[in-house]
Amino acid sequence: MLGLRSLVSRAAGFAVLLGLLAPAAAEGADPLPSWNEGPARQAIVAFVERVTKPGGPDFVAPPERIAVFDNDGTLWSEQPMYVQLAFVLDRVQALAPQHPDWKEKEPFASALRGDLAGVAASGEHGLLELMMATHAGNTSEEFAKIVTDWLATARHPKLARPYTECVYQPMLELLAYLRANGFKTFIVSGGGIEFMRPFTERVYGVPPEQVIGSSIQTRYELRGGKPAIVRLPAVDFVDDEAGKPVGIHKFVGRRPLLAFGNSDGDFEMLEWTTSGPGSRLGLLLHHDDGEREVAYDRTSIFGKLARGLDEGPGRGWILVGMKRDWKRVFPD
Amino acid sequence: MLGLRSLVSRAAGFAVLLGLLAPAAAEGADPLPSWNEGPARQAIVAFVERVTKPGGPDFVAPPERIAVFDNDGTLWSEQPMYVQLAFVLDRVQALAPQHPDWKEKEPFASALRGDLAGVAASGEHGLLELMMATHAGNTSEEFAKIVTDWLATARHPKLARPYTECVYQPMLELLAYLRANGFKTFIVSGGGIEFMRPFTERVYGVPPEQVIGSSIQTRYELRGGKPAIVRLPAVDFVDDEAGKPVGIHKFVGRRPLLAFGNSDGDFEMLEWTTSGPGSRLGLLLHHDDGEREVAYDRTSIFGKLARGLDEGPGRGWILVGMKRDWKRVFPD
Repeated sequence: MLGLRSLVSRAAGFAVLLGLLAPAAAEGADPLPSWNEGPARQAIVAFVERVTKPGGPDFVAPPERIAVFDNDGTLWSEQPMYVQLAFVLDRVQALAPQHPDWKEKEPFASALRGDLAGVAASGEHGLLELMMATHAGNTSEEFAKIVTDWLATARHPKLARPYTECVYQPMLELLAYLRANGFKTFIVSGGGIEFMRPFTERVYGVPPEQVIGSSIQTRYELRGGKPAIVRLPAVDFVDDEAGKPVGIHKFVGRRPLLAFGNSDGDFEMLEWTTSGPGSRLGLLLHHDDGEREVAYDRTSIFGKLARGLDEGPGRGWILVGMKRDWKRVFPD
Repeated sequence: MLGLRSLVSRAAGFAVLLGLLAPAAAEGADPLPSWNEGPARQAIVAFVERVTKPGGPDFVAPPERIAVFDNDGTLWSEQPMYVQLAFVLDRVQALAPQHPDWKEKEPFASALRGDLAGVAASGEHGLLELMMATHAGNTSEEFAKIVTDWLATARHPKLARPYTECVYQPMLELLAYLRANGFKTFIVSGGGIEFMRPFTERVYGVPPEQVIGSSIQTRYELRGGKPAIVRLPAVDFVDDEAGKPVGIHKFVGRRPLLAFGNSDGDFEMLEWTTSGPGSRLGLLLHHDDGEREVAYDRTSIFGKLARGLDEGPGRGWILVGMKRDWKRVFPD
């Protein structure tokens, strides 16, 4: 005879087979094995237990469990430069034969020499020129293929592996842990929305409709009789700093319960999130591990973190120290 | 002893209890009771069976099952005028005491008299002025409350019930049927995104992050020290006609499998959807039922349908005739 307990257990097993329950939740295995015991991990687990406890004072219904994550420096490495900037430099090389004038013309000449300082010297306008020359003019489907092909072959200059393997293992676990607890996980990045969407589902388990990022304008038109979304050389939206709450509001329409970033570009996203009513959690990853990754904060070109270090703790935000809080950094 | 069949049945029952399976799917009840037998219903059911049949040639994995629905005239009534226009007129009345000059100033004077022809005479510019005067200046949270309060008290002039009960029962069933089959249902409307989001989850089961619409610009700022999303008197995005595929691409990042509209403003959305590879379905609701609703198409101010009638059938789109295809129109 099967007792009730056995039946429930088998029913749960059956549900797992159907993919209806997360195995970790059903089995009780540690959902965050790459996180050391300590205040950061404790704060995360306590928060999730608070907002998911039925009947508890901080309970939040599943549809309202929204968690937002920055990408560069939060979910994957942003050193020695943003991955998308490495993509831009490679695209300039690939497109150079069609643009012989680039050899003499800044910022393209510097980009072709791999001279980052020269590129930087061209200022924001120069960077924008590089972006438009490499990101616009094609259709959304063509661009997605270019990104996918590039990610399949490009390698991180120091870690010598695909960029999609330069993601942080503890963050993959946190994303899965939140989803197993009914959260919808969103990426909210200053990076290009169409640069991220081709890989976020496979790598992070975040589908394209849960990716928010900077964008260029697009237009719907018939190209050779075939409908296409064409990418135009004009900025549509910059999803950084005060743009992040605006992007969250536009795409999600609800204030998140949890926000996780690593730079001052994430400050307003954490501020917006943690100033909502009820229980909220703001987290900042502090890159303090020069051995396993790169130690940087206040003076870094990419991912500068100063205001967050100064004001974050006073606002109740949790500083996650890579050195102290993470057992390992990258997936094996 | 419990046999395997009994165990599976109990496990399924257990899953239903947990809300993990849709009861209709588990029980085999008719998921579309308000749809008459006929070509429209058959096309819908055959399409859903095709794309969800594991191992079948047209199978599509659940994350890619995206269905998009227009709102005005597709999910709820748009006659005698768009619901949002009724809201605008009521807001002009409510705000008039703070704007004594409106009595003498068009298009406000016409709006205050309820003179729709006068409002229309002020052209697109006049309508935009009305929109900005009634939709901007407050915070997103204040605006959501205004909409919610209005929807709770306003009544449809002919049906004499709340607008949120002027939704189409067969469409509610179709939304639920698609979701029970692993689809994610999105609204893609020319209406205001922040006008829809306060009610779509409760009324349609569509959460705010799956609502795409026209929008005004917003800015993140501290108001009296409190973070807020402030609504600005400037158009951000018009989600109509060729804007609909652009909006879908921006918010979803995948081409839908199914699109359902009712007017020529939905033409490009259906064109974009049905020109994708694999099995796709385009549907147009034809308002041909003057008894139970309103009969209108080619010459209507709201929801004009002409090109769709002319070209739709040749493109394989299904015309859903309200008169023939629907057993009933509104919920009881």
